[in-house]
Amino acid sequence: MGMSESPYIKACYGRNQGRIPVWIMRQAGRYLPEYRAVREKVSFLELCKSPELIAEVVRQPVERFGLDAAILFSDILILLEPMGIALSFPDGGPKIANPVNSPDDVRRLKNYDVAAALPFVAEGIRQIKRRMPDTPLIGFAGSPFTLACYLIQGKGSKDFDLAKRFMHEYPAAAEELITFLSDITAKYLELQIDAGADSVQIFESWGGVLSKDDFCDWSARPVNEIFGRLKHKRVPRALFVNNVAPYLDVIGDIDCEVVGVDYRIDLAQAAAALPHKAVQGNLDPSALFESPDRVRERTIQILDAVENHDNLIFNLGHGIQPHTPIASVEAVVETVHGFRS
Amino acid sequence: MGMSESPYIKACYGRNQGRIPVWIMRQAGRYLPEYRAVREKVSFLELCKSPELIAEVVRQPVERFGLDAAILFSDILILLEPMGIALSFPDGGPKIANPVNSPDDVRRLKNYDVAAALPFVAEGIRQIKRRMPDTPLIGFAGSPFTLACYLIQGKGSKDFDLAKRFMHEYPAAAEELITFLSDITAKYLELQIDAGADSVQIFESWGGVLSKDDFCDWSARPVNEIFGRLKHKRVPRALFVNNVAPYLDVIGDIDCEVVGVDYRIDLAQAAAALPHKAVQGNLDPSALFESPDRVRERTIQILDAVENHDNLIFNLGHGIQPHTPIASVEAVVETVHGFRS
Repeated sequence: MGMSESPYIKACYGRNQGRIPVWIMRQAGRYLPEYRAVREKVSFLELCKSPELIAEVVRQPVERFGLDAAILFSDILILLEPMGIALSFPDGGPKIANPVNSPDDVRRLKNYDVAAALPFVAEGIRQIKRRMPDTPLIGFAGSPFTLACYLIQGKGSKDFDLAKRFMHEYPAAAEELITFLSDITAKYLELQIDAGADSVQIFESWGGVLSKDDFCDWSARPVNEIFGRLKHKRVPRALFVNNVAPYLDVIGDIDCEVVGVDYRIDLAQAAAALPHKAVQGNLDPSALFESPDRVRERTIQILDAVENHDNLIFNLGHGIQPHTPIASVEAVVETVHGFRS
Repeated sequence: MGMSESPYIKACYGRNQGRIPVWIMRQAGRYLPEYRAVREKVSFLELCKSPELIAEVVRQPVERFGLDAAILFSDILILLEPMGIALSFPDGGPKIANPVNSPDDVRRLKNYDVAAALPFVAEGIRQIKRRMPDTPLIGFAGSPFTLACYLIQGKGSKDFDLAKRFMHEYPAAAEELITFLSDITAKYLELQIDAGADSVQIFESWGGVLSKDDFCDWSARPVNEIFGRLKHKRVPRALFVNNVAPYLDVIGDIDCEVVGVDYRIDLAQAAAALPHKAVQGNLDPSALFESPDRVRERTIQILDAVENHDNLIFNLGHGIQPHTPIASVEAVVETVHGFRS
C-alpha cells in the first residue's frame, strides 16, 4: 500500500472512503509498560536524543493497537537547547534555568543550523521509516507562541502570566522573538519532511491563553507563515489548537489541511466552522478512566455526531494520561475501526 | 443613596441607566502597595481570618480607584479546613497535605456548621459594611467542582488531570463529593448574605477543564442548585465562568442574574447568548501591562462592542496580576466611568 492510500493521509485530504483512521496524542508514553521499560534505562532527554530508542518507542503503540499513524517522539522544547537555553525535566515537567526576562535576553538567543544541532531528529525519522515503511509518520513542532510561553515563563503554568506580561510590556521584543522562533520552526519541520515525515503537525498548546486580537497576532499569523513555507513540500499540514473554540473563524483561514481540536469543542460544530479542512479529535482523555463500555459509548457519540467521515481523523482531545487502562485504548481503536466497516 | 440605586446593583438587574459600574477581580491584591504593606505583617491565611484586616484590604482599592463594588477578601479554599483538610499557601499557591485520593477519603470529610467554623467571614463582612455602608459588597465562593479540583489534585494545576481522573474513575464518590460541597457552599453563601453581602458570586474557575457533558453534570447542575437555594434572599447572584465559551447555552439556563466571563469570549457574543442576564467582563489582565493609552483603547473597544449598556458590569476577564501598573487600573476606571456621561 502506498503512503497516499493510507486512511490517515486520505482523510487529511478529505477523500477517505475506508475505515476511519485513529492515532492518539502522546501515544508513546508512560501508560505503556513497554515504554516505561525503555524509560527505566534512560532519562526523557536522553530518549529524545537517541535515534534507536526514538524508533523503538514510536513503533510500540502503533504495533500494539494497530494505529493508523506514527508520530515522532520528541519534545517541542528540544529546539531551545541550541539557542543557549538550559533545559531539563527534573520532575516530569520542563524547567529552564535561564528564561527570557528582558528584550536583551531575546537578542542573546543563538540562531543555529537545525540539521547540525539536532541530528538525532532526522536520524530518528529515518530509522522509524526503515522499521515501519508503510505507516504514515507525523513530524511535529510547537507553535512559536507556545515555545515563547516556556522560554519566558521558564516552566509550565496554568496561564503563562509572565509570558503574557512580557509580550504586552515589550511588544517589539515579542515580535522579534516570534519571528525568530517561526523561522527556526519552519526550518525544523522542513528537516523532518526531508528526512521522511509524511505529514507535520504544529501544537498550538497554549494559544488559548490569549485574547482574540493577540491570538491573531501571536499565534495564527506566525503559524500561517510557517505552513506557507512548507506548502511546496506537498505533505498534509495539521494544526492542533487547544482551548480556542471562540477563534475557529480565525483558524479556518490558516493555510493547512487538518485542524485537531481539544475535547471542549463539539466536533460537529468544529467541522462546520472549518469547511475545507480535515478535523482531528476529540475524546476527553479523562474519559478513558471509565469502563470500556462507557469508552465505547463516548467514542460512538463523537463518531455519530459528525456528518462527514471522509475527512475525520479520530484522536483524543488532549494527550493520553499516565495510568490510562490499556483496555480503554483498545476499546477506542476497535470502535473507530469498526464504525464504518 | 440606597443600595438598590447603586450602579452595580442596578446593572445586575439590567436597569442601570447611569454610569457603567466597574470592579476588578482580585482588586485587593499584591499590585497595591497598601495591600503589600498589610501582607508584610501577616501571612495570607492570617489575613483571611482577621475581620479587621479583611475590612482594611477590602476598602483600599474601592477608595483608591472609586470602584463601584467591594468584594469580600478570602480564599475559595477556606471552606476546606473545617472538613479536616490541611491547607497552606507555601509559595503563593495552595497546597493540601491530605488530598482526597479515594472514595473513602470523600466519606472522611467532616460536615460542619459554617457560622461556627468560619466566624471571621461573617464578622469581616459586618466590619466592611460598617466602614463602607454605601458600597455594594459582593460575597463569594468557589464552585463545588472547582473546590473538588483542589481537594483531589492537592494543588493548582494546568488541567487538574488527577481530579478529572478521580471523577471519571469513581463516579459515585464524585457525585457524593459534589453534593457535599454544594450543600456547604449554599450555607456559606447564605451566611454571607445574612451578614450583609449585597450580592454573591460563584467562581467556576476550573469548569473549563471539563467536556460539555461533564460540565453539565458536575458544574452547571450543582451551581444551579446552590443559586436555587439562595433565590429567596433576593440579592443578585453572579457566576464567573472561565474558559467555557462553547457552553454558553448551558450557562444561559442557570438561574442567576449575572454571568462574568473571561477575556477569550467576545463580550457582545456572550451578551447575545445570555439574553436575560447581566454580563460582567472582560479585559485581559495582561493588557494592563501596555501603555495607559492602549489600555484606554482596549477598554473602549469592549464598551463599544456591547449593544446594551444597562446590564453591563465592567471587569477584567481574570484576576489582576501582581506588578500591574496602578496607572493602568486608573485608566480603566476613568474610561468606563467616562463612557456614558
